[in-house]
Amino acid sequence: MTMARRMAIIASKGTLDMAYPPFILGSTAAALGYEVGIFFTFYGLTLLRKDLSDVKISPLANPAMPMPVPMPVLVSALPGMETMATAMMKRKIASKGVASIETLRTACLEADVRMIGCEMTVDLFDFDRRDFIDGIEYGGAATFLEFAGDADVSLFI
Amino acid sequence: MTMARRMAIIASKGTLDMAYPPFILGSTAAALGYEVGIFFTFYGLTLLRKDLSDVKISPLANPAMPMPVPMPVLVSALPGMETMATAMMKRKIASKGVASIETLRTACLEADVRMIGCEMTVDLFDFDRRDFIDGIEYGGAATFLEFAGDADVSLFI
Amino acid sequence: MTMARRMAIIASKGTLDMAYPPFILGSTAAALGYEVGIFFTFYGLTLLRKDLSDVKISPLANPAMPMPVPMPVLVSALPGMETMATAMMKRKIASKGVASIETLRTACLEADVRMIGCEMTVDLFDFDRRDFIDGIEYGGAATFLEFAGDADVSLFI
Repeated sequence: MTMARRMAIIASKGTLDMAYPPFILGSTAAALGYEVGIFFTFYGLTLLRKDLSDVKISPLANPAMPMPVPMPVLVSALPGMETMATAMMKRKIASKGVASIETLRTACLEADVRMIGCEMTVDLFDFDRRDFIDGIEYGGAATFLEFAGDADVSLFI
Repeated sequence: MTMARRMAIIASKGTLDMAYPPFILGSTAAALGYEVGIFFTFYGLTLLRKDLSDVKISPLANPAMPMPVPMPVLVSALPGMETMATAMMKRKIASKGVASIETLRTACLEADVRMIGCEMTVDLFDFDRRDFIDGIEYGGAATFLEFAGDADVSLFI
Repeated sequence: MTMARRMAIIASKGTLDMAYPPFILGSTAAALGYEVGIFFTFYGLTLLRKDLSDVKISPLANPAMPMPVPMPVLVSALPGMETMATAMMKRKIASKGVASIETLRTACLEADVRMIGCEMTVDLFDFDRRDFIDGIEYGGAATFLEFAGDADVSLFI
C-alpha cells in the first residue's frame, strides 16, 4: 500500500491575488488524491473569515499588475483606488469563469483539506474566533511542522 | 541508478527583484544536475514575455530596500520613481557583474529547465501567447503538481 | 538509524512582518529535532545585521494588514507612517508576549540553525560583513541547494 502524496502550504498573505494560490493548489491537489494541509498565518488568517468581502487587492508596489489603463503610482494611492482595483479584478475573474475565493475555499473544505488557523496570529491581531468559518482547527508552527515533515510538496505563499 | 534530484518552483511575482530567484535557482540547480520545472503564474507569467523591458521594481512598501539616498515614502510614489528605481537597480546589477534576467532565462532554457506558463493566467489577463518566448509549455495547477509530487525541493516565489 | 528531518528556508524579505516566519519556523523546527538551514538573500540579508532597528513594516500595498484605525492609502504614504506603523506593531507584539526578532534569532543560533548569508547580495548592495552577526556563513544558490536537496520541508519566504 502506498501512502497518498501530501502537500503542506503556509498561507501568509491576505490580498485577493495571493488568496487564490492556496485554494487553487489545495483543491486541485485534493482532487488528484493528495492529502493537503494549509496553515493560515499573519494576513493569511483573514482568508478563513466567514466574511471575505474585505479581501482586497492593491495596485501599489506591484508594477507587474496588468491594469486596463496605465496609472501613475500616485493615482494608485488615491482614496478608493484599492476598492476600484478590487472591483475590477473581481469582475475580470467572474467574466473569465474563474471561481471566487469562497467557492474554492468551500471546495477545499469538501475535499477534506485540513485548514489550520495560526493561534499566535489570532491573539496578536485580537481576532475573534467566531468570525472564522467552521470546520477548521487552530495550532502553531509545531502543528504545521508535524504535518509538513512528511509532505512531498511544501510551499510558503 | 539513482534518479536526478528535482526542484519545482512556482514563480508568481513579476517585479525585477523577484524575477531573479526563479532564474538563479533554476540555472544553478540545472548546473548541479537537478531536473528543474518552473510554473509561471499570476504576475510571474510576465517573466516569460519576449520583451522584458517592462519588468520593474517598486521602492514602495519595501522599507528594506537599500536605496542610495533615503527617500520619504511619498516621494517614492511620485511619477517616474518606479522607472528611476528600476534604472538604478539595473545599473547596480550590471556594475556588479550580475547577469541580466534575459541571460539567466536563456541559461535556464539551454539547461532544459522546463518552463510552464499558467493557462488560467493567460486567459485572465488577456495575454497573447505570441508575446511569450518559444520553448515553453502551457498548463495548470495539475501540471505543476504532477511534476512537483516527485520534487526534492519545492518553492513558491 | 534514522536521519533527523531537515528544513531548508530561503528568507528573501526584510520587513518586520516577514522577518518572523523564518525565525519562528527555524527555532520551532530545531526544538522538534529538525536540522535547519536558512539562506538569507536579497532584502532578507538585512535580518542578519547586528542592528535590527531598521527592520520596519509598511502599511502600504497591504490592504490585509489589521490597523487599529482604518487609514486611507494616501495617509499611509505620508512621511513617518512607516515608523509609526512599525512602532505600533512592535508594541502589539510585545504586549502579546511574542518574542522579538532578536530573541528568536538568538534562539535559532543557540539551536545550531545554520544561517547562510548570500554572497551575491552582500556584493550587490555593498553591505559590509562587519555589520552582520557572528556565527553565520556565506554562500550562494549552490550552497543552499546542497543543503536543500535532502530537506523534508523547503520554503521560500
